[in-house]
Parts: sequence; C-alpha cells; structure tokens
Amino acid sequence: MPGSSTELPDRFRDSPVARLATVRPDGRPHQVPVVFACSETAIYVPIDGKPKSGKRLQRLVNIEHQPAVSLLVDQYADDWNQLWWVRVDGTAQPHEDPATVSAGQQLLRQKYPQYSDVALQPHIIVITTHRVVTWSAG
Amino acid sequence: MPGSSTELPDRFRDSPVARLATVRPDGRPHQVPVVFACSETAIYVPIDGKPKSGKRLQRLVNIEHQPAVSLLVDQYADDWNQLWWVRVDGTAQPHEDPATVSAGQQLLRQKYPQYSDVALQPHIIVITTHRVVTWSAG
Repeated sequence: MPGSSTELPDRFRDSPVARLATVRPDGRPHQVPVVFACSETAIYVPIDGKPKSGKRLQRLVNIEHQPAVSLLVDQYADDWNQLWWVRVDGTAQPHEDPATVSAGQQLLRQKYPQYSDVALQPHIIVITTHRVVTWSAG
Repeated sequence: MPGSSTELPDRFRDSPVARLATVRPDGRPHQVPVVFACSETAIYVPIDGKPKSGKRLQRLVNIEHQPAVSLLVDQYADDWNQLWWVRVDGTAQPHEDPATVSAGQQLLRQKYPQYSDVALQPHIIVITTHRVVTWSAG
C-alpha cells in the first residue's frame, strides 16, 4: 500500500534516471526519461538543448501551461516481491538565473561523471516537491 | 532525434515494465509502473485489484476523465551512447467483457510466468496506440 510524505528517500535520490510526466496544453499526458539531482529543497533536471527542428522541447511547452509534474523512479525484478517505486508530485519551473543554474549543475556534475564530457546548457528545470508517494511489494 | 510511427518495436514489446502516465481530473499528471502485454492491435495492462482503502485506483479515475495516456519504456546505461526510449501515446479503456479480458490475460500469462502464482482480476485496461515515438542516443 502506498505511503506518503514529503521526504525524498535515498533510493529516489540515488537513481540515475527518473521519468518526468507533464501535461500537454491539449490535456494529454507526456513522458520522458530524465537525469536529475536533488538538493535539500529542490530537484534539478537539466535541459539538454532544443530539438534539431528548432521547436521548443515539449516538456517546456507543457510546464509553461501546467507546472504540476510527476517524477517516477521504479525498480523492476522478476521476483515481484522486490518491486518498488517512488513518485514525486511537484511543481516545475524553468530557471535561467546564473545562481540557480550553477547550483543545479554542480549537483548534476557530482552525481553524473558523464558531465565531464557532456555540455550543460545555461538553463535548468527546478522541481519543488509537494508529495512523495512510495510503494514496495515486500 | 525522435522518430515517429505506429509500429511497436520489439524492445518496447519485450520490456517487462512500462510507466503509465495519465492525467488527473484536476489536470495534474499521474504516473505508475505497470506490466503489460501487446497483441497486434492493442496493449493490455492488468488491473491488480483496488487499494485496501476501498477507493478506486487513481489510474482508473483518471482514464475515465481523460482516456489519453502514455506508456514509456526506457533503457538507462552509464554509457550515455546506449540510452534509448520508446513512448506510446494512445487511448485507454477499461474492459470487463470476458472475451477481451481473456485475450489480454492469455498474453499476460505468456509474457509473465509470475502469473502462475499471482491472480489476475476479471477486468483489464486496453490501450489503442495512436503514435509511437522512439529515441536512441547511438
């Protein structure tokens, strides 16, 4: 049975990937896997550039229209007693101010050594947590 | 760069888990990991019973209000050249008629040997695919 709090469990913070769900302006859901890093007060999701088509990323269009988002981390296992998931419901806001971007990028570089070779863009999505729902089969 | 079609790739069909995104009646997104099985024309997601609280599952409440859903399968790897994801945008409909439920359960039992020990409920969610978006880094 799901439990609810506002504390981010370690197995959420430490997961290398989460799925970001947003809602499109026409009311349909959108989902994309993202990397992320957590501070004490926020979750930072990098914006890795814009599509080659020149259009804005769909997640940014969606967040502007509906800032409520969800982040999901889950573990699958053939032994279904080992299944678990953590879902964060929060509010997303794109940021471009250097202090916020720098704070998020520092956390992302600490978590992902890959960013020593991959460029980070000068803007970032900051998610404020409203509710954390945890579920585990065991 | 994402590609788009209506064909479900094998790496989507064969994945043991997907994330189901729906939209709540208040317009916020909802996400939960699900098992699923695919036929030529539909994707079946089992309904594993109702919460102990006696409330209806949130995903069913949401689908009734907004049948547009998204299913996401992704691969994470420390080597970011191996990242990929597949997202299916479709329409979800709960079904209780025995023929549909039976067809879906047969596919679920074929895919998941775990269902030899786990009960399947006499209703199922059927998702019709409208668009398949695939992305891979490599």
